[in-house]
Amino acid sequence: MKPHGPIPPGYSADSDGMLTIGGDRADALADFAGDTPLFVYDSAMIAARVAEWRAAMPTDMQLHYAMKANPYAPLLAFMAALVDGFDVASGGELRAALASGMAAADVSFAGPGKRDRELEAAITAGATINLESRGEAERALSIASHLGLTPRLAVRVNPDFDLKGSGMKMGGGAKPFGVDAADAAALVRDVLDAGADWRGFHIFAGSQALDASAIAETQRQTVALAGRLAEEVGATPPLVNLGGGMGVPYFPGDMPVDVIAVGEALAETLAARDRALTDSRFAMELGRWLVAETGVYLTRIVDRKVSHGETFLVTDGGLHHQLAASGNFGTVIRRNYPIAVARAFGRDPIETVSVVGCLCTPLDRLGDQVALPRADVGDLIALFQAGAYGASASPASFLGQGAARETLV
Amino acid sequence: MKPHGPIPPGYSADSDGMLTIGGDRADALADFAGDTPLFVYDSAMIAARVAEWRAAMPTDMQLHYAMKANPYAPLLAFMAALVDGFDVASGGELRAALASGMAAADVSFAGPGKRDRELEAAITAGATINLESRGEAERALSIASHLGLTPRLAVRVNPDFDLKGSGMKMGGGAKPFGVDAADAAALVRDVLDAGADWRGFHIFAGSQALDASAIAETQRQTVALAGRLAEEVGATPPLVNLGGGMGVPYFPGDMPVDVIAVGEALAETLAARDRALTDSRFAMELGRWLVAETGVYLTRIVDRKVSHGETFLVTDGGLHHQLAASGNFGTVIRRNYPIAVARAFGRDPIETVSVVGCLCTPLDRLGDQVALPRADVGDLIALFQAGAYGASASPASFLGQGAARETLV
Repeated sequence: MKPHGPIPPGYSADSDGMLTIGGDRADALADFAGDTPLFVYDSAMIAARVAEWRAAMPTDMQLHYAMKANPYAPLLAFMAALVDGFDVASGGELRAALASGMAAADVSFAGPGKRDRELEAAITAGATINLESRGEAERALSIASHLGLTPRLAVRVNPDFDLKGSGMKMGGGAKPFGVDAADAAALVRDVLDAGADWRGFHIFAGSQALDASAIAETQRQTVALAGRLAEEVGATPPLVNLGGGMGVPYFPGDMPVDVIAVGEALAETLAARDRALTDSRFAMELGRWLVAETGVYLTRIVDRKVSHGETFLVTDGGLHHQLAASGNFGTVIRRNYPIAVARAFGRDPIETVSVVGCLCTPLDRLGDQVALPRADVGDLIALFQAGAYGASASPASFLGQGAARETLV
Repeated sequence: MKPHGPIPPGYSADSDGMLTIGGDRADALADFAGDTPLFVYDSAMIAARVAEWRAAMPTDMQLHYAMKANPYAPLLAFMAALVDGFDVASGGELRAALASGMAAADVSFAGPGKRDRELEAAITAGATINLESRGEAERALSIASHLGLTPRLAVRVNPDFDLKGSGMKMGGGAKPFGVDAADAAALVRDVLDAGADWRGFHIFAGSQALDASAIAETQRQTVALAGRLAEEVGATPPLVNLGGGMGVPYFPGDMPVDVIAVGEALAETLAARDRALTDSRFAMELGRWLVAETGVYLTRIVDRKVSHGETFLVTDGGLHHQLAASGNFGTVIRRNYPIAVARAFGRDPIETVSVVGCLCTPLDRLGDQVALPRADVGDLIALFQAGAYGASASPASFLGQGAARETLV
């Protein structure tokens, strides 16, 4: 038997033992959707997550949603009313952000390989471009000049530090992201000299960290770096985007981020900030932390079989919807995401099984030798932490299976 | 500097030094397609690959194409005229196979999680179902009975051995695939007793192996197992699908499979086969080996930047089209696929660069510290071995980028 990650708080069973999501039974949700697999996102949990963050953080901190985590259109429309901005990473995401109702002025666009047509779309819409290089700055200024528009430009800085313990390091050494800290002030001056509307700095050191003190230390370094750069530029950045970094517990032993501790440390950091930042505003950019726990992937058991004494539950889902949960995206060692049998939610396990997907590849494993209550053909398996980097971060076309259904409840 | 995999044979440059594919210049192909990134598949190379296999294998061996490797519709239509059957892994692939012009009788359907509606579609069309379990057999027989049709059923066997050195092991111990060898004969007898059209065995021990002697030994074991099972059943399997196993050289030091050696050994194996298999036909099921080398992924450089002394070429492509090449699919250690600068194909390298995609994640790396000729913004990077498990096996929607273009030349 191998352990699985912790079931996120907030999920419970009804009197039949059936998992409920947003007050609805999992089986009813699947029936109503018309087919499985199905991603269910809980809007009340999203709102609670945003409220939890706001309660913990210093007043005036802005919250941006990194929509790469989950770009499902109804979720974006719901989120647009809750947060202060969207961060997008492509022209496609820019269109989706604007369609959600988010104001263009509250959309910022990062990404190392923006094409001319993407820069043009952002400038035309009035979104902020987080410049990733001097070359990109020159292209953006040239396009804006042709359009006769004043571009809104921020400078993304590649910091000289990274976020300790983060699953994805975005700083600390040679990176394709942003402008090296040593070159950032000069680029800002050139952007200002060109008459652009300079929006500030974007500094993203890493993501998916669970240690509040590591996040706090990175934020302290980030604000200090922004202060040094502001002094060097001789101007106040209107906004400093501190990046994200707050992760979620996927695996056995993972503990949630202590958000209160992050907020308290950030308040101290901001109180002690360089005077060049006195009039700056600050934002955090969160994706995974806001939505991962609020999503459940429901997949139906198609076959139950025994091979060499081991029991396999074969589902209609798989890595084509849950690439990361299968252990094939950004992880070296495969570990089990939180998993449950929907109709026996919270019940004691009685057997060890492997839950696999329907794809004809040994990579397609959703739960490896996990202890679960008894489950049979037709039962629903629930995979948790499915609200971020699931549907849109998986190869939906693989083996001709197609996309999963999605619903926001 | 880190090495990259060997450029496949058959690619060359024109007098300008520009890579050509199927006689067309890479830059012209990109222009004609209207945008990059672009997958180009070379039909003449595919035909040559099929011919190479037929020349090496014993007469009467059948060649099946495992369309999961590349389901691009024009490629399927081209392939349908070259091979003896298609192997599909979902209802979606079944539809694509039939649309390609392949006769239903030459289509077989494997996959551990077939749904009732997929079984029904296969039975109605007259395709062969490779049964993965007793439960699936019962469902297929029940559905056929309701339809008033005689189903074409083969039994997929989980062998007690695996393919040594294979990238994906599909046999040898507890697996979700097929029926354990110890239980296979009893299932065949039940299928025969139920009046089904028994089509034989499907035995797939592994894939992506380069060692001809390991492949030959696995084929010897596979034919021996089929013989034992046929004796046990007391009937001759019409077809024994020996699976695939033949891989391609992705990485430095990889050598191509010695196909001649595989064919010679297989001839000996078949000559010595159990007499219960005297009237059986045999097939190999190949995907990757047939198409990987015949495809090139072309992506355009959007930015060239230096960070902490390291040069990055940022392209408009990335892991959303080339998940495996980025090192994020089925590999533990990231190594470099074969890569080149299209307009300086075959030229000596002059600098060490990292080629990254446009996605805002450190996972999106197509070439890590590779030695290449000088390349600038607007130049095309060519990634080889892109004909298999590329476009359809990558998360095209990730970060809102969308699918790459594809063309068959």
